Amino acid sequence: MSLDLAAIRDAHARIQPFIKRTPVLTSERLDAAAGGQLFFKCENFQEAGAFKSRGACNAVFSLTDAEAATGVVTHSSGNHAAALARAAQLRGITAHIVMPAGAAQSKVRNVGSYGGWITFTEPNLTAREEACARVARQTGATIVHPFDDLRVAAGQGTATIELLEDTPDLDVILCPVGGGGLLSGTAVAAKALKPGIKVIGVEPALGDDVAQSFRAGKRISIPTPATIADGLRTNCTGEKNFPIIRQYVDDVVTVTEENIVTAMRAIWEALHIVIEPSAAVPYAAILEGKVSAKDQRIGLIVTGGNADLDKLPWLKPEGSQPPM
Amino acid sequence: MSLDLAAIRDAHARIQPFIKRTPVLTSERLDAAAGGQLFFKCENFQEAGAFKSRGACNAVFSLTDAEAATGVVTHSSGNHAAALARAAQLRGITAHIVMPAGAAQSKVRNVGSYGGWITFTEPNLTAREEACARVARQTGATIVHPFDDLRVAAGQGTATIELLEDTPDLDVILCPVGGGGLLSGTAVAAKALKPGIKVIGVEPALGDDVAQSFRAGKRISIPTPATIADGLRTNCTGEKNFPIIRQYVDDVVTVTEENIVTAMRAIWEALHIVIEPSAAVPYAAILEGKVSAKDQRIGLIVTGGNADLDKLPWLKPEGSQPPM
Repeated sequence: MSLDLAAIRDAHARIQPFIKRTPVLTSERLDAAAGGQLFFKCENFQEAGAFKSRGACNAVFSLTDAEAATGVVTHSSGNHAAALARAAQLRGITAHIVMPAGAAQSKVRNVGSYGGWITFTEPNLTAREEACARVARQTGATIVHPFDDLRVAAGQGTATIELLEDTPDLDVILCPVGGGGLLSGTAVAAKALKPGIKVIGVEPALGDDVAQSFRAGKRISIPTPATIADGLRTNCTGEKNFPIIRQYVDDVVTVTEENIVTAMRAIWEALHIVIEPSAAVPYAAILEGKVSAKDQRIGLIVTGGNADLDKLPWLKPEGSQPPM
Repeated sequence: MSLDLAAIRDAHARIQPFIKRTPVLTSERLDAAAGGQLFFKCENFQEAGAFKSRGACNAVFSLTDAEAATGVVTHSSGNHAAALARAAQLRGITAHIVMPAGAAQSKVRNVGSYGGWITFTEPNLTAREEACARVARQTGATIVHPFDDLRVAAGQGTATIELLEDTPDLDVILCPVGGGGLLSGTAVAAKALKPGIKVIGVEPALGDDVAQSFRAGKRISIPTPATIADGLRTNCTGEKNFPIIRQYVDDVVTVTEENIVTAMRAIWEALHIVIEPSAAVPYAAILEGKVSAKDQRIGLIVTGGNADLDKLPWLKPEGSQPPM
């Protein structure tokens, strides 16, 4: 397949019964502070708490019955893992999830709650990829990569179809970027539906592989970044995603850890929603002045809401260091 | 005026330009736990963070130009204060807010941010009522009581018109009750639109004046309750509200402080929304088994989102007492 508007529309029709149409929220206060109009597409309300349910459902429900019979497998400890386990459960097939030993109990429980089978492995990328390939060989399961898979990217792009239906007159869309699945789908959908729109990827400065790659014109790999935005701790943008990002994305900008936390709290307070640090990254770009909202209508993809309610990053013991 | 569906529909048309149509959210997990279907009407997303904007806007925009010219006054330190200041600012008139000395700085700032004029007074009901009456005498301002005012109650009832438009097949509506303005408006709207529906008021057991009054058939006053649900710390249900509650409400049930906190956290986690303790009270009634959700379709009014993000009630030092 190729990633185009038709593929994203197909995905939207396919996943409709299994996902939520999430609302777009606004805030008088955030608008006044930004000097423009901000439209937050709330994928924190998506099933399993993140946009990942869109891509995972599209991948799982794209399989033929014969392919589906042997299940799916992925390596992820985060939102993709839960979303894939849920999608597989909905189709009545097995999901194998490769997770690093020592993953947070809440994440293990989350995958388990959707009936996912967990394979623990060493906490490094090579071990995880090998374990994933081994499970695929042994079971015949189809690998559903968290981002470097065009069915996944097409699913992620469906959020932008909804966003532009609800708020057609956007000037800019800001989108977090980790591996680039969401950014690819977002950019393809946005440019097809509204050619004049700008699409800007935003990532933590601590993990700026996509910004570096975008400038260099080739994929650059970095060590796993220690950003608080745990959904964006990727080493390198996807092989399939990168050419799409080069073609359709206008810019990739970075934000500091401090501004991610400030943005996260501002959104909790002004919009009254729970979002995870990764989801605050687009608004951080406005706070940091990396993107001017002055007289602009800006859509922001709020990617997920799976924050740890026992450890809020702004509740720090006195004298402690800024989060990293 | 009398409080009927026509008055609530009038209010809805009047306030439309100044309020949000808030979404109704659902959660697969909360439904599975409850054994029924739960529909959360998210007034935490309402302007100024609470349903209070509905009643305040209806009261302010119901005034004649001559009445409006001399402004409005109320005594409240909470969501009604901010909502009234905002409504007055939108109409371009003055709002005087009588607040107890020692009110939280965040609340003072909030009223100030909407241009409200603040009169500080002793922190007891008599002093507040006297100060309110004095301001009204001196300025000619119209008193807009936080709940014992039928224009306010009609405004609050507009949330139920929207809820029943979005989810017509509800069996039950659960609604927090403090002074009874929201419960009155909710019950009148619900019974007019869907006579077979049940409307149940829920209040903290620590402040069970409405439950007591409902059983006794007369208004019973209690000392200001020390419940964590700060929006429901009322002494007695409103004189105008009580006969309406007796006529239209099916039951009033109470919940423990512990269940309010458990419900609040469950909603933050499953729905990914920020709600204040008072807004968790209806779901607490389901958790506590006071209302059975088994095979029922239940609407819950999520009243507000102005929680203190620096003091989450489930983050307690070890060995500390349950919240009160």
